[in-house]
Amino acid sequence: MAIRFSSTGLVVGEDTRFSLPAFVDAILRGVGQVMLMNNAWTGLLFLAGIFLNSALFGAAALLGTAVSTATALLLGADRASIRDGLFGFNGGLVAIALLYFLEPNPLTWGCVVFAAAGSTIVMAAMASLLDTWKVPALTAPFVFTSLCFFLATARFGRLETTNLLPTAGLPQTAAVEGVVTAATVGEGLFNGIAQVFFQGSLLTGIVFAIGLLVGSWRACVAALAGSLVGILVAWGMGAAEPAIRAGAFGFNSVLVAIAFGAVFLAPGRGATFAYALLATIATPVVFAAVSAALEPLGVPALTLPFVLVTWLFLFASQRFLGLSRAAAKDSPH
Amino acid sequence: MAIRFSSTGLVVGEDTRFSLPAFVDAILRGVGQVMLMNNAWTGLLFLAGIFLNSALFGAAALLGTAVSTATALLLGADRASIRDGLFGFNGGLVAIALLYFLEPNPLTWGCVVFAAAGSTIVMAAMASLLDTWKVPALTAPFVFTSLCFFLATARFGRLETTNLLPTAGLPQTAAVEGVVTAATVGEGLFNGIAQVFFQGSLLTGIVFAIGLLVGSWRACVAALAGSLVGILVAWGMGAAEPAIRAGAFGFNSVLVAIAFGAVFLAPGRGATFAYALLATIATPVVFAAVSAALEPLGVPALTLPFVLVTWLFLFASQRFLGLSRAAAKDSPH
Amino acid sequence: MAIRFSSTGLVVGEDTRFSLPAFVDAILRGVGQVMLMNNAWTGLLFLAGIFLNSALFGAAALLGTAVSTATALLLGADRASIRDGLFGFNGGLVAIALLYFLEPNPLTWGCVVFAAAGSTIVMAAMASLLDTWKVPALTAPFVFTSLCFFLATARFGRLETTNLLPTAGLPQTAAVEGVVTAATVGEGLFNGIAQVFFQGSLLTGIVFAIGLLVGSWRACVAALAGSLVGILVAWGMGAAEPAIRAGAFGFNSVLVAIAFGAVFLAPGRGATFAYALLATIATPVVFAAVSAALEPLGVPALTLPFVLVTWLFLFASQRFLGLSRAAAKDSPH
Repeated sequence: MAIRFSSTGLVVGEDTRFSLPAFVDAILRGVGQVMLMNNAWTGLLFLAGIFLNSALFGAAALLGTAVSTATALLLGADRASIRDGLFGFNGGLVAIALLYFLEPNPLTWGCVVFAAAGSTIVMAAMASLLDTWKVPALTAPFVFTSLCFFLATARFGRLETTNLLPTAGLPQTAAVEGVVTAATVGEGLFNGIAQVFFQGSLLTGIVFAIGLLVGSWRACVAALAGSLVGILVAWGMGAAEPAIRAGAFGFNSVLVAIAFGAVFLAPGRGATFAYALLATIATPVVFAAVSAALEPLGVPALTLPFVLVTWLFLFASQRFLGLSRAAAKDSPH
Repeated sequence: MAIRFSSTGLVVGEDTRFSLPAFVDAILRGVGQVMLMNNAWTGLLFLAGIFLNSALFGAAALLGTAVSTATALLLGADRASIRDGLFGFNGGLVAIALLYFLEPNPLTWGCVVFAAAGSTIVMAAMASLLDTWKVPALTAPFVFTSLCFFLATARFGRLETTNLLPTAGLPQTAAVEGVVTAATVGEGLFNGIAQVFFQGSLLTGIVFAIGLLVGSWRACVAALAGSLVGILVAWGMGAAEPAIRAGAFGFNSVLVAIAFGAVFLAPGRGATFAYALLATIATPVVFAAVSAALEPLGVPALTLPFVLVTWLFLFASQRFLGLSRAAAKDSPH
Repeated sequence: MAIRFSSTGLVVGEDTRFSLPAFVDAILRGVGQVMLMNNAWTGLLFLAGIFLNSALFGAAALLGTAVSTATALLLGADRASIRDGLFGFNGGLVAIALLYFLEPNPLTWGCVVFAAAGSTIVMAAMASLLDTWKVPALTAPFVFTSLCFFLATARFGRLETTNLLPTAGLPQTAAVEGVVTAATVGEGLFNGIAQVFFQGSLLTGIVFAIGLLVGSWRACVAALAGSLVGILVAWGMGAAEPAIRAGAFGFNSVLVAIAFGAVFLAPGRGATFAYALLATIATPVVFAAVSAALEPLGVPALTLPFVLVTWLFLFASQRFLGLSRAAAKDSPH
């Protein structure tokens, strides 16, 4: 059965390219694109990993990805991008984030739908903006849309928070807190991968890693290496042990490591490997900085550090002849 | 009589195109452009509305618009843009804003002149920057220039504030405050339009609406609808009643509704109407977010939410084939 | 003796263009480029001025400039830019800044090397970004890289600060503090120049001025005039006397005055002179604003005001026919 949008007057003609299976495929790829994987099976395993930990977040991920993908269809965005899930992943993340930080009442569910649709507008806007430099928007639409709603809780009395948002405060110099053990590293390793979808679960992290493996063994190795680098740098710099164990310093490094270890650079040369490593090492530092910079606003850093570091190293790579960039067809975004 | 800038050595040749009537026309259009209307009569009615409420702000609007327009002439900016008032409206708003938040002493008036001239530099800079995407600067030069002076009051002891600037604080979760009645909606509707020029006056709002009607009946309807949407969204989300009544959640929505209901999109199609509505609904949420984000700095959001939402939906519109953009000649900016 | 990077596999072929003397020349020019001077003698005098005040900062400047220049070589950046010191000056500044605000322990020295290398990535990224408008990155890479580490001290317990970072707080309206005397102006004049490199020393300021004179008499005059304008504007607006005396309102004005008085605009015409003066006058106001805006984060403004004002006036200059821009060959960046 073909989903026909022609009745709304938005999509004219006999456009049957978006059959229900095609729509489901786009949603699954959208979930996979959260970790830059254009692969429906990877997306399915990611969804399984989320549902294993929480049916609420699993449902949110599905709804958000579906709404943002459908919005892109209704507004007439590029079909190939929609099919690759590029208008889905930000909506999925926005939905999880809103339900993580806001009470799941009807108003919040309304905001989830509105914000998922809005993430498609932000995605299109950033694609227009960044097209000048052939750099992708990454999860910036998710970050901006989510932060907008979290900040708005300070003005809107009916937006009820789950009290998981950080308390607004003024940044203070940190002290070393707790002792890093093998358990910190072991749990942190998979929590770092699970936290990409806001899941604090070892098992979910392992299922996510399998999902990556199905899509690309390089991406799986890069994710684990990225999570480890995040832990080691945070440990070396004296970050708090509970945060390291929870994967807080890992999830952005996971994404940066996938981006430069498996997606945007061609493998094989020394300078390229060093470049990817440098980006991954920089990520926990940028995470610490962004997290502190947002402390007066009482909002989390989300994947903004991943976005900033990846943009930085992608923009810069255009100036470095010593690097081998991946062929365009390998870059899904 | 022709105003001749040739004596300053800045404008060479027998350039008599800027006669005094032409200069006055540019100023009136500049005042009109605050609500995206390239119409001298609209500008005149806006001025009348301001003077009705406050001679101080009326004089400030005239002075600021004149100074920023003259600066553009002296530096050799594009004549057509100057004639359309595009180098005037930010100066006019800067002048009102500075006199609203700073005591009207000689230093403040000096700052008004300097800031109005400066807003022309910011306008030219943003025009260069945004020309890459054919997106207008809107009131961003007004926002950045004004915020610069408000922030500087924390370092400059001789800049005396009127104590209307918000107190710097850390954002807290809001509670519902006050009860919205028919009076809230009725007053808020016109206050929302009046607040575009910092005027908290029902009568001024009505005169502004007439000014819009003279320029474009679509713009007038859009402004009223935008103000109403701002009130309804803020009410539904649980914003404080006094703020809704004062038009705080309305003035940005008014501008966004004019932008997408009467200026940048061609009317008539369902998707286009839905797009304009989505932008208008998003505006009070973005206003709440921007207002909260600026709370630690103790400065107001001004029309930054309008600028951000309009940029967002304009950038994005370039990716959506389902929308009908207005012909270039209809877009005054 | 030729430094050969070919052994690393990064620079292929018999590339002997970077002999040791060439590398030293690039480093000295890099130090000179901190004040936009592409001149090795100027750089040498700047280094002498720093060493006169502090061997630690002198060593840091050398190390940072060397590391960031070498990183650019290893990654294969444009040779001509490297030779002109354009990949050196941000690294030199980052190194001084980190050692000014962080205790000089092994971790900090490690961060200095990492941050200097990172500043080259930021430089390349900003060059790619800003190339669209032919506008230089200036010291933005230094500012962003340094702020990242200062902010991270709120999360990393092993990053020990020297307690010179401003305490995080909420901006309050300022009161006039202290009396400006001839000594304030005299000391502030040269401190303003010395503070470009974080040096609070009259003598260092004088040596810097001589260094500028060697590179360009215009730059020397502009620097002194810029420092004076910074002092006078800050005084007139009621800034605190100790800050004026320390050169806090001067160093950004010094850089802006050099940029528009000796580098980016061709001298000679009235409008051009007025434009440069307007930029220099705006700088202390922007400094006050940026400094207040960063107060909740507890980090200093560094040369961000210089970067913002210079970008603003450079972007804007493309729209003003009344200005005479310098020929491309005169613009070192």
